[in-house]
Amino acid sequence: MKVSIYGAGRVGVSIAFSLLHTSLVDEMVLIDIDKKRAEGEALDLLHSSSMFKSCNIWAGDSKDIEDSDFIVITAGRSQRPGETRLELLGDNVRIMKEISEDIVKYSPNSIIINVTNPVDVLTYFIWQFTNLPSQRVIGTGTTLDTARLRVLLSQQCGISPASIHAYVIGEHGDSEFVPFSNATIGGLKLIDYCKLCENNSEQGFCLNLKIIEEKVRKAAYEIIERKGATNLAIGAVTARLISSMWRNEKRVWTISVLVDGIYIGYPSVIGKSGVEKVLRLNLSEDEEKKFQYSRSVIQKSIEEIKSKIF
Amino acid sequence: MKVSIYGAGRVGVSIAFSLLHTSLVDEMVLIDIDKKRAEGEALDLLHSSSMFKSCNIWAGDSKDIEDSDFIVITAGRSQRPGETRLELLGDNVRIMKEISEDIVKYSPNSIIINVTNPVDVLTYFIWQFTNLPSQRVIGTGTTLDTARLRVLLSQQCGISPASIHAYVIGEHGDSEFVPFSNATIGGLKLIDYCKLCENNSEQGFCLNLKIIEEKVRKAAYEIIERKGATNLAIGAVTARLISSMWRNEKRVWTISVLVDGIYIGYPSVIGKSGVEKVLRLNLSEDEEKKFQYSRSVIQKSIEEIKSKIF
Amino acid sequence: MKVSIYGAGRVGVSIAFSLLHTSLVDEMVLIDIDKKRAEGEALDLLHSSSMFKSCNIWAGDSKDIEDSDFIVITAGRSQRPGETRLELLGDNVRIMKEISEDIVKYSPNSIIINVTNPVDVLTYFIWQFTNLPSQRVIGTGTTLDTARLRVLLSQQCGISPASIHAYVIGEHGDSEFVPFSNATIGGLKLIDYCKLCENNSEQGFCLNLKIIEEKVRKAAYEIIERKGATNLAIGAVTARLISSMWRNEKRVWTISVLVDGIYIGYPSVIGKSGVEKVLRLNLSEDEEKKFQYSRSVIQKSIEEIKSKIF
Amino acid sequence: MKVSIYGAGRVGVSIAFSLLHTSLVDEMVLIDIDKKRAEGEALDLLHSSSMFKSCNIWAGDSKDIEDSDFIVITAGRSQRPGETRLELLGDNVRIMKEISEDIVKYSPNSIIINVTNPVDVLTYFIWQFTNLPSQRVIGTGTTLDTARLRVLLSQQCGISPASIHAYVIGEHGDSEFVPFSNATIGGLKLIDYCKLCENNSEQGFCLNLKIIEEKVRKAAYEIIERKGATNLAIGAVTARLISSMWRNEKRVWTISVLVDGIYIGYPSVIGKSGVEKVLRLNLSEDEEKKFQYSRSVIQKSIEEIKSKIF
Repeated sequence: MKVSIYGAGRVGVSIAFSLLHTSLVDEMVLIDIDKKRAEGEALDLLHSSSMFKSCNIWAGDSKDIEDSDFIVITAGRSQRPGETRLELLGDNVRIMKEISEDIVKYSPNSIIINVTNPVDVLTYFIWQFTNLPSQRVIGTGTTLDTARLRVLLSQQCGISPASIHAYVIGEHGDSEFVPFSNATIGGLKLIDYCKLCENNSEQGFCLNLKIIEEKVRKAAYEIIERKGATNLAIGAVTARLISSMWRNEKRVWTISVLVDGIYIGYPSVIGKSGVEKVLRLNLSEDEEKKFQYSRSVIQKSIEEIKSKIF
Repeated sequence: MKVSIYGAGRVGVSIAFSLLHTSLVDEMVLIDIDKKRAEGEALDLLHSSSMFKSCNIWAGDSKDIEDSDFIVITAGRSQRPGETRLELLGDNVRIMKEISEDIVKYSPNSIIINVTNPVDVLTYFIWQFTNLPSQRVIGTGTTLDTARLRVLLSQQCGISPASIHAYVIGEHGDSEFVPFSNATIGGLKLIDYCKLCENNSEQGFCLNLKIIEEKVRKAAYEIIERKGATNLAIGAVTARLISSMWRNEKRVWTISVLVDGIYIGYPSVIGKSGVEKVLRLNLSEDEEKKFQYSRSVIQKSIEEIKSKIF
Repeated sequence: MKVSIYGAGRVGVSIAFSLLHTSLVDEMVLIDIDKKRAEGEALDLLHSSSMFKSCNIWAGDSKDIEDSDFIVITAGRSQRPGETRLELLGDNVRIMKEISEDIVKYSPNSIIINVTNPVDVLTYFIWQFTNLPSQRVIGTGTTLDTARLRVLLSQQCGISPASIHAYVIGEHGDSEFVPFSNATIGGLKLIDYCKLCENNSEQGFCLNLKIIEEKVRKAAYEIIERKGATNLAIGAVTARLISSMWRNEKRVWTISVLVDGIYIGYPSVIGKSGVEKVLRLNLSEDEEKKFQYSRSVIQKSIEEIKSKIF
Repeated sequence: MKVSIYGAGRVGVSIAFSLLHTSLVDEMVLIDIDKKRAEGEALDLLHSSSMFKSCNIWAGDSKDIEDSDFIVITAGRSQRPGETRLELLGDNVRIMKEISEDIVKYSPNSIIINVTNPVDVLTYFIWQFTNLPSQRVIGTGTTLDTARLRVLLSQQCGISPASIHAYVIGEHGDSEFVPFSNATIGGLKLIDYCKLCENNSEQGFCLNLKIIEEKVRKAAYEIIERKGATNLAIGAVTARLISSMWRNEKRVWTISVLVDGIYIGYPSVIGKSGVEKVLRLNLSEDEEKKFQYSRSVIQKSIEEIKSKIF
């Protein structure tokens, strides 16, 4: 497997480092405007590879992405404490345009995974700029939020994250939410599982769930406030997503995917060739409203960009 | 981790061989009345271990089970083609009694996993004979049937088995069934997932599901008819169950577990100390009937044994 | 990865079962003259696959081997207790001829791994019958013997098998031997390592080493005497060999490889495209004699076959 | 397994992140004077853990290290570009003293792995301050240098790092060196392997080997010059060292270990209880000189500290 990563900052490097642990990658290219830094990271990764499958890792240029199986985009200005994800937008769309042109030129058959925020909006523009089939252009969307949700529910409910099916959907940002009416634990509807649980018997299940949903939404802020950025969990999730696709597992991931004309975090079946199926959820009336609101946030950003920049 | 396995026949050996691949086991004891055979298998396993974590494996006696983390019981007459699982009962209860006495004597703090059929009835008697807490006495129940179900649904629906929550419950035998009203795929109710699927749009979802349920129920017969016994899949499932417990994953498994006084295949959360939670399903009226019928089959066997043998 | 296995007996099935645990295989075909049995094993393996990466497994015919990455040959009469490996020869050469013709016809670009005994002689004939480059035709040779040697040395010396470089070379049979002058432990010459060891200080290192060499040579007999055949360790070793090649690890394995005109167990670097390098050992005078004798045993068998059968 | 890590900087976090990928750890504590930062990293790691075995991770104080299986020390000022490793010494010895007192107080039965540089000198003082058995106090020594050496030799020689036994020994610093007379590849002496290699046939093997040795010695400087620090490879190596000990693999690692009164990078067999055996190498005269020189460098630092600080 060959993976090219745009951006050798903390996120790009965490993805690369986590990927090495899968022993699935044969070649890895890091591309960064600060080439010296990319060289340093590539060397550090290369020495790491002695613990895993041997892997050829180097700092390259866009022409080195040729024949990549996956192209991961983490380039762009990073989020600052207090800043909303959408404020980053302007500067980063232009970077995506350049990268998109390189991808079309040098490796048009790859699967593109965008990580740079605001992920939904930028993935939309990468799709537009590259004109590749939407099956092969995705964003990390709310995959990390969903992972965080499962960890918290897992701790709360004393059950493996693997036995929990609950999603965070919508914009990867403040308008994301959990459609609890679709959540199941061990195949039981969440509400039925809660009834079995002594802890929740008196206070009802909604109280803790709302706290958990809020915690997930604020998780990135909490980490940014403390360490200035988030990089490890998004690294682990993106690496896991890539290995899941490569192994053609056809698991469900809440990636940022094309739904009715825009990109948004939504559960989708992902395999070796990209998106295989978008799972249409039956949302409750309230959830449907939240979803439409979240869509409108993304839509508005896209239109702002289109009107102001191009 | 130390694992002791009663019975060095094809099932016991497949469990041991699969366990080696997890690189989690430090010591493994095989106990069989045919000690020479057990010695041969232990040697063959020992040489296999050079490919994995080193593991001390030998053919032992009951006193060698001391301080086992897990004791796996596969001893007993195996099923013959055409024979129902319940017909095996008489001979095997006596074997379980002896083994139970040894366990109480030499390793009363282990977790006991019974694989020998009829698994529900025999696990009940092991629980009675050992007088150990039911949290630490389980049978493989319908775990393999559930695994088979997920493979078939996975192939039918083009989605990872990990994204499918559907169970086979009840007696591990002809009265087992799938409570489809509880089945979810990627968090969607199965019936909603089916609506998304072009293949099923005309014929309705029930037709294929009924075929799949029947296929699962007959799977063991199909294999026994062709190769005389089943051993590999039960080996892989039991090894996976043990490693899941050891890693304290708290996943849901349809083991044979104590439910209202008898042992029966039912979804349960399993961790390092055994059964942590039995997930009470909301069954439809029809499913409840099937479950009660399946219970009665097990109940009847238990009573026959109690009246005739003891 | 696609793997086709000729022979669905105990050895073929152990290889298939061990391979499933690597989660590297996408397709697996079992081919056996007893097709019903192969169907039973394929079903049992298919159900096992639910615990690992999903894998398509079926009982097929020679035409189903098309586009295999690896073709494993385990077909042939198995060894009987007391019988020397060479006595099996006559019957099995004919089987190899048929299989070779099928390989050339249906999947001439695969890597061929022969397991059937006498492995050195039969691999030679497969190479002759297929006329494929010797880089892509190998036998399991003394890989298992080497693995057994490392387990025994590991136990004796209290060090990981991974830190031991000692080989069993020559005919996979009674004339195989350990060139101890080349053995190293943790980079030390074996003889220097032994000096560090309190256990061996008085009796000298040769005594235990000779016992170990003899144990390795007799290991198969010991197991066959007890369980009628060996299958697990050869299964694990062959599966590990395949995954090592697939991952292009370029490790050293004592496969049966073309050395000066015949196939014989000898350390070789193995990668994705087959044999990359044969490591010429510096043998002591005594070891060179043993090696020449072992060659002559294989040579004689080949000539007998050539003169009597063809 | 419980692991406590002093220092939540880039090295400590890389170790923690790599450890998560092993799915072996149940509890992880990060301790840092900047507790807010440690909290941020702990949260980011906790969310990562959803991709692996669930693991309880938090930012704690020294009292939280109780019952740790391993205590990893990465605290201390980090190396600055151009600075020699020994210049860091003064400030860091005091930090080690405090940590040592905490370890003795709260978790005296743990295995201590020091990573902070100058690793040999500081590990010596940790051993002195804690007064724990030297079997349970080690430093990462030249493990990373050895890993780098194997990657470079592997690329040069077209063979797996696993088949190469060559060590970097001595001070983890400018006086470290490779005792090539002990190096083996696939069990062959390096010099004999080189003879097989067409690339090296004319220029002799020494030329490339000297370049490789120099590259290894300068590797950290090269990376520090480009990215300001090294963290990934030391993270992967330390995590692998811990999992190797936990699994009781008894592999050989060139950790910093007590040899004739001081700590120095030297090949040792490491298992669950720490150092099991120090492998005394037969060095050539020239190598012995280098080793004595390297010892003297460490010795001098220790004495400087002893005379000036205490």
